[in-house]
Amino acid sequence: MRLLQVEDMRDLAVGAAILGTGGGGDPYIGMLLAEQVIREYGPVRMIGLDELKDDDFGASVAYVGAPVVMIEKLMGVADMVKAFKALERYMGRTLTAVVSAEIGGANSIVPVGVAAALGIPLLDADGMGRAFPEIPLVIWTLHGLSATPMTMADEKGNSIVIETIDNHWTERFARSVATDMGAVASTALYPASGPDLRRASVPGSVSRVIQIGKAIREAQAAHRNTVEAVLEVTGGVRLFKGKITDVLRRILGGYARGECTIEGLGDFKGQKMAIHFQNENLIAYVNETPVAVVPDLITVLDSDTGEAVTTEHLRYGYRVDVIGIPCYHEWRTPEGIALGGPGHFGYDVQYTPVERRAR
Amino acid sequence: MRLLQVEDMRDLAVGAAILGTGGGGDPYIGMLLAEQVIREYGPVRMIGLDELKDDDFGASVAYVGAPVVMIEKLMGVADMVKAFKALERYMGRTLTAVVSAEIGGANSIVPVGVAAALGIPLLDADGMGRAFPEIPLVIWTLHGLSATPMTMADEKGNSIVIETIDNHWTERFARSVATDMGAVASTALYPASGPDLRRASVPGSVSRVIQIGKAIREAQAAHRNTVEAVLEVTGGVRLFKGKITDVLRRILGGYARGECTIEGLGDFKGQKMAIHFQNENLIAYVNETPVAVVPDLITVLDSDTGEAVTTEHLRYGYRVDVIGIPCYHEWRTPEGIALGGPGHFGYDVQYTPVERRAR
Repeated sequence: MRLLQVEDMRDLAVGAAILGTGGGGDPYIGMLLAEQVIREYGPVRMIGLDELKDDDFGASVAYVGAPVVMIEKLMGVADMVKAFKALERYMGRTLTAVVSAEIGGANSIVPVGVAAALGIPLLDADGMGRAFPEIPLVIWTLHGLSATPMTMADEKGNSIVIETIDNHWTERFARSVATDMGAVASTALYPASGPDLRRASVPGSVSRVIQIGKAIREAQAAHRNTVEAVLEVTGGVRLFKGKITDVLRRILGGYARGECTIEGLGDFKGQKMAIHFQNENLIAYVNETPVAVVPDLITVLDSDTGEAVTTEHLRYGYRVDVIGIPCYHEWRTPEGIALGGPGHFGYDVQYTPVERRAR
Repeated sequence: MRLLQVEDMRDLAVGAAILGTGGGGDPYIGMLLAEQVIREYGPVRMIGLDELKDDDFGASVAYVGAPVVMIEKLMGVADMVKAFKALERYMGRTLTAVVSAEIGGANSIVPVGVAAALGIPLLDADGMGRAFPEIPLVIWTLHGLSATPMTMADEKGNSIVIETIDNHWTERFARSVATDMGAVASTALYPASGPDLRRASVPGSVSRVIQIGKAIREAQAAHRNTVEAVLEVTGGVRLFKGKITDVLRRILGGYARGECTIEGLGDFKGQKMAIHFQNENLIAYVNETPVAVVPDLITVLDSDTGEAVTTEHLRYGYRVDVIGIPCYHEWRTPEGIALGGPGHFGYDVQYTPVERRAR
């Protein structure tokens, strides 16, 4: 057990943005919400998977929709609490823990706010070890856990309960409803028992992102190379360094989709990187050769601060380092690659572990 | 109280198609389902609004979506029962009666099947006295009743519960979900207490359509003019007579939208009628002058049989009579015209009662 304080929120937000691989929503918004809620309700108890009891029952809370819109809507944790309580009511049972579905961006921080508001523990774990743009893309799916019953709420007071035959149907319905709710919705999903969460979750994720955030903060304070600090603490590899020259972006089917072009600097002078994203960065090419692809993590770092640049903040002229981070090992099984690999997103590219490609 | 037998189903289906004004789904499908269920479970008790007790609680069941698709999917009453039971479960109370949301097409017959399957009474009433293509377009909305909680089910096993702040939001979510469910979904909606149903429903609707169906059947058997029989039993007026020369149709946003052109015959020789529909017929023009518009009913009749031709069955070459039927009086209030009148559907046309225009 560990107590998460207001001060931990900044490290958590900065670290979560790194594993957010460009998506998962603006972590700064999540941080503001979580800070505020911890100030109001006190610190949050975080427990490890091994501390879960057999009769515990947890669920996730997450924004579903296009993160670009989240910036404009700045939703409160109140809607998330509403979705969580609606799930409890629908299931007719008390939920004893909150777990992050993804460990990137706002969706890894909002659960802290809900745990604080409800006075229940947050799990030091998540469902993917990264951020991904679709509900079924979690390790939980590989273990046969259901995303439903799932509840969705908007700030106007509308709410929806979804029960589906599989997690792909959940995605389909939730995406439409989120679009109708104004492009982003507060949701509670993946309710699961203690034993199911223990066997099927990615362990230690919250501690990991706090550690990443802390490493960046300390490197900044000591005027050390921040990008090197990120590579060290994440086990990542440098893929590119350059200046952003073009960003295409559009909201399509409830997603922020687009492409970012970077012109090489330093060792990469004369080369060009293109990154395709769908909320999260999916694939990175150098001179049209893929150098990293999902389920591995592709993160764009601000070359000065070492902090992640989310897809909605990509801008012409930014100096960036692009890094690749190996994904959670279960993503590298044949089932994991089928679920969250390049083929799922329509890329006819063989998956090769990023650290092997980079060599 | 009256018992509905298998034999009543044909009259009900034929009559409901008349008030269906081209929409509400193919009544033949609903009839097949209801006949089959009554054969299996026995006749259905139909009660009047005055027989509803204060502690009764009813709800509607209805297909939501594009009726064209219904022909291809032929959904069973089992999904409707599932939606109805899901609503009971969600509300934590027993529903003691089934009421039709609309009295046109399949949606006025499927409730008979659900009543039969569950052994509860069907109300001799409905929510509009016609068919309309959107969930909020019921007299119940004028009386402040809520469409939610509403449940939706598909034949694959997915289900959804919707709770909204008003009936227009219900429409928005339900339309998206129906589209995701394959363009048509089985739903249970408008749960309401006995007193609310008594004060806010259109009374006697089921008896009325059975009477219409019976009048057509008897005119056919006696080789009398079937169109005249329909005009007499409905209090309708003849708007046009001719041959269908063109039908445009497309599925858009979960609706079957389109336009039908008819060339005049007999007294109408040299004239041309155009009917616009969105699931139901919305407006009819003769030589570009409106002759009937919602909320009044516009029905295309087969000139021989006197039976209604639904929008999905409109075909080149059909000889048809087009009639207008005065709508339920509450539709003619300013609130009723605002809710279901020409302006709602984007027509900049003054509403004039059809019987007055026709004079």
